[in-house]
Amino acid sequence: MNVGAEVLCIGTELLLGEILNSNAQYLAQQLALLGVPHFYQTVVGDNPDRIHQALAIAASRSNLIITTGGLGPTPDDLTTEAIANFFDAPLEERPEIWERIQEMAAQTGRTLTANNRKQALLPKGADILPNPVGTAPGMVWEARPNLLILTFPGVPSELYPMWQQTASPLLKARNYGNGTFHSKVLLYWGIAESALATKVNHLFALQNPTVAPYANYGQARLRITARANSQEEAIALIAPVEAEILRLTGEFCYGADEDTLATVAGRLLQTSGQTLAVAESCTGGWLGETLTEVSGSSSYFLGGVISYSNDVKVDLLNVERQALDQYGAVSEIVAQQMAIGVKTKLHSDWGISITGIAGPSGGTDAKPVGLVYVGIAHPDGKVEAIELRFSPSRGRNWIRKATVMSALDLFRKRFVMIG
Amino acid sequence: MNVGAEVLCIGTELLLGEILNSNAQYLAQQLALLGVPHFYQTVVGDNPDRIHQALAIAASRSNLIITTGGLGPTPDDLTTEAIANFFDAPLEERPEIWERIQEMAAQTGRTLTANNRKQALLPKGADILPNPVGTAPGMVWEARPNLLILTFPGVPSELYPMWQQTASPLLKARNYGNGTFHSKVLLYWGIAESALATKVNHLFALQNPTVAPYANYGQARLRITARANSQEEAIALIAPVEAEILRLTGEFCYGADEDTLATVAGRLLQTSGQTLAVAESCTGGWLGETLTEVSGSSSYFLGGVISYSNDVKVDLLNVERQALDQYGAVSEIVAQQMAIGVKTKLHSDWGISITGIAGPSGGTDAKPVGLVYVGIAHPDGKVEAIELRFSPSRGRNWIRKATVMSALDLFRKRFVMIG
Repeated sequence: MNVGAEVLCIGTELLLGEILNSNAQYLAQQLALLGVPHFYQTVVGDNPDRIHQALAIAASRSNLIITTGGLGPTPDDLTTEAIANFFDAPLEERPEIWERIQEMAAQTGRTLTANNRKQALLPKGADILPNPVGTAPGMVWEARPNLLILTFPGVPSELYPMWQQTASPLLKARNYGNGTFHSKVLLYWGIAESALATKVNHLFALQNPTVAPYANYGQARLRITARANSQEEAIALIAPVEAEILRLTGEFCYGADEDTLATVAGRLLQTSGQTLAVAESCTGGWLGETLTEVSGSSSYFLGGVISYSNDVKVDLLNVERQALDQYGAVSEIVAQQMAIGVKTKLHSDWGISITGIAGPSGGTDAKPVGLVYVGIAHPDGKVEAIELRFSPSRGRNWIRKATVMSALDLFRKRFVMIG
Repeated sequence: MNVGAEVLCIGTELLLGEILNSNAQYLAQQLALLGVPHFYQTVVGDNPDRIHQALAIAASRSNLIITTGGLGPTPDDLTTEAIANFFDAPLEERPEIWERIQEMAAQTGRTLTANNRKQALLPKGADILPNPVGTAPGMVWEARPNLLILTFPGVPSELYPMWQQTASPLLKARNYGNGTFHSKVLLYWGIAESALATKVNHLFALQNPTVAPYANYGQARLRITARANSQEEAIALIAPVEAEILRLTGEFCYGADEDTLATVAGRLLQTSGQTLAVAESCTGGWLGETLTEVSGSSSYFLGGVISYSNDVKVDLLNVERQALDQYGAVSEIVAQQMAIGVKTKLHSDWGISITGIAGPSGGTDAKPVGLVYVGIAHPDGKVEAIELRFSPSRGRNWIRKATVMSALDLFRKRFVMIG
């Protein structure tokens, strides 16, 4: 048949179960977006014979082989060498790769070893697949007629930009895809995947565009995917379905595609010229961290107080000692006082506070693990506290992450209501 | 060779990237625990020809084939039929399976369709692999001499108990495991994978235990894996190799296995009864978030100040306005003043501060993106600032994450030096 892509993941750590093969999913999604048929995924360890055998099988049934892993500088990084061997091509050092490795090392004051030089080798005839993030580039190589090989490092943060910047445009340009796929992903908070699916159940039978639900870290999503001859055509197919979905579920939808709750909140603040400060207890700084993931957030985010201990709540946020004694740190009134406190101390327009019990210890019958209060102090002096309850079985970090997301979602809704 | 396990995952949803192949990781971990050699993983879609071909390849190179997926009642669930076809065995209905399917449907008031009856079929000669959770059982089948086949549904919540209750004891009883594998993973910060590999290069040739390097989010690791008849024996094999590795690389090693820099720092503080507070600029709360990932961190972590704007540095941390004007927010002196400020304001024993340029904007020739200062205020009043430089090409969030890790590692080293 010899048409279609095969993903070949190389790494003993995968066969020992030490890491989850998220690269295979990413590449599968990306190939689907491009409309490239994808029939096989294989995983082998860092073993030359088995890599050779896997290449032989892949080369016999696929016309596009995408490898991940084995491009590092250590002796068990064997991918490039194994590919060169399999296709009987000599390895050549590429001066431009070696220069870049030396440059990157110089920037960070790192000493290079002989091992590093190996990363500058590619089979004769192969092109460099640039790695904008790390030292190891991949290759783009038509190893024989009708057989293209792309290699990537195993590190996802390097693989993603290499795919987006080079591999994806290249496959498009060479017409590997079967038409164009275009997707729009609608992002939700505050509704479970199953409840969301029920609301738009009648749309799952559509053929073009298709509508599919999925969840990621507790966030429900709907993906609308159209196949067409051009991106414009695909977008036109998606538009009416998107409108119908938003009519049914719009109140829970906070954005689409690359949006995050932090970029959405940030855009609202930036547009209005208002500022925000945060006071965090159980999340320990996670809300601040999330807001500052966005480059340029310094124009609206002033900072905050991590008031993990009660003394810090009193000393830095002017929470009343009596409120702590009478109602406890995890209470509506303390959440309100924290939000007002941080807004006042930092002279911001808005204040958001978080206080809760992330567990696994510290819960009581009256205040179980998963109980959280989010306080919001508004520009007009109004302050409110919203109670959230998460299942204790979700675990400490899930509860903390969901709290941060919920706080941003509540803030977004309040802002829109007022603005 | 014909010795070793092959995991064959069947499902078009995997090839479309709609779900993450967590079953492959689970099975890999479980096989490693049992000491069953595991050399290949393959993924194919719900297509009879390609399932047939994948079975042919697996049967030629492995003596244990474990499939996941394709056991459901729909027309694209093809696994059982494909296996029976491949080995030329007729399918037989097993009354006990059909009875259980009917029982379960009655319990939940579900109506059965003709499709469901298909789930009661198994190849002649195969045993039932019971499914305590769902309707579809798997099979245990010695399809030919020295070739055992186990099939599982794709749903993890069904696969796990089927593995634990039946498959794992069965493989143990039949001596598929070749002794026991046991691993110890040593964790590093502040040294690149390649430099680490160079230091212990002579150990990579060892056969038992083996030593292998790998990196994860910029953290280098060394895995020592021993095969033995018992866990105790394996641990004894690992010990001298671990000691030799630590002799050569100990200064960079912060822990092992489940340790994180946050748990290591937390343990040091907890043991000594000392407390910590943090002042964060470019990381926006990430250091606090990381410290509070650890349950029980409230006994040593008091909280901190997210001083994203200069005003907050002055107002809440007593940083001198003059120092900001003269040296800039990203400077040694401001890092020191932030660390002293947060230690003083929060009455902690230690203060850690972070100020830097995470980018992508905000860099200059004198202060490029990736320049960071970490301040550490010691219990005895001493304060220092350490300059870090990261490559701008790593991107905003990599730089922020690496900064948090570096700050914890620096703190750990200072603490150990003093303590």
